Amino acid sequence: MDRTAAYVALESLIRTIPDFPLPGILFRDITPLLKDPSGFREAVDLFVHRFEGEPIDRVVAIEARGYMLGAPLAYRLGAGFVPVRKPGKLPGTKHVESYTLEYGTNSLEIHDDAVGHGERVVVVDDLLATGGTAAATGRLLERLGARIVGFAFLIELTELGGRSLLRGHDITAFVRY
Amino acid sequence: MDRTAAYVALESLIRTIPDFPLPGILFRDITPLLKDPSGFREAVDLFVHRFEGEPIDRVVAIEARGYMLGAPLAYRLGAGFVPVRKPGKLPGTKHVESYTLEYGTNSLEIHDDAVGHGERVVVVDDLLATGGTAAATGRLLERLGARIVGFAFLIELTELGGRSLLRGHDITAFVRY
Repeated sequence: MDRTAAYVALESLIRTIPDFPLPGILFRDITPLLKDPSGFREAVDLFVHRFEGEPIDRVVAIEARGYMLGAPLAYRLGAGFVPVRKPGKLPGTKHVESYTLEYGTNSLEIHDDAVGHGERVVVVDDLLATGGTAAATGRLLERLGARIVGFAFLIELTELGGRSLLRGHDITAFVRY
Repeated sequence: MDRTAAYVALESLIRTIPDFPLPGILFRDITPLLKDPSGFREAVDLFVHRFEGEPIDRVVAIEARGYMLGAPLAYRLGAGFVPVRKPGKLPGTKHVESYTLEYGTNSLEIHDDAVGHGERVVVVDDLLATGGTAAATGRLLERLGARIVGFAFLIELTELGGRSLLRGHDITAFVRY
């Protein structure tokens, strides 16, 4: 399948569910894509094709849907896998960065030995919306001295302008709404 | 690397952290293994070798560390990937099963269209402890009419007896404490 056909096939496997998790929100549900063997393979392969041939030390993925795409990407690239986690999940010494939600703040954590100084990393999540979690992940990685090769998302909700929070970085998104 | 050498190498990459998340608990931290390119590859390949050659329709993984191993397994087997999630994360119509914790109960959810009747599935998580989450996942899959080919874990804490809750099922664990 050529690359354009893959995008179209993937988009047809993403289900839109209105009013989840809150009234007025259109939730883009990737579970029909993940459960489809061809869809899942095509989605992972889009990420692989974007980064193969570049030296990548670690794939850093954001809890929890980022793991579903980032882990197979790390495996295919021969890279290590690093989870960025929600508070209280990581047992070792760690860094914490907060980000703003519509009401209040939340935070993300990374082990302080997860990535070495100068190591080349790719950041993966399923969705780029406001960019808050991706930008917080970027700040965690900068504190560790990582070189961020790029941010990659399956979906981008363009009207939310998340790209502006990641200015200066390479950003890839395969399905845009 | 032969299979036995792989087990030994993996065990050396699992870090034990005392008193996490509660005093008296020895937490088996797999993040050093995941971030190591060879360790991550070996760990995924152990799961792949266990199931390759058998027809597997979907790999079902338990939130959240199960996704880190289950997603690359699904990719390698050419299967679909199905996340079992904690409450409130899945947007579609779903089934819920509760399980007992030391204090109180928690529950896990699966979309009701995640697996079709008679489909062959493998259940993946990082750790088999008391078996409560794995058994709840098994009940969710039985409600969908799935055929559970096996449960597979990177680590088994044998003294907690989790196998007894999965009686009658094929169980694989690669590192046992």
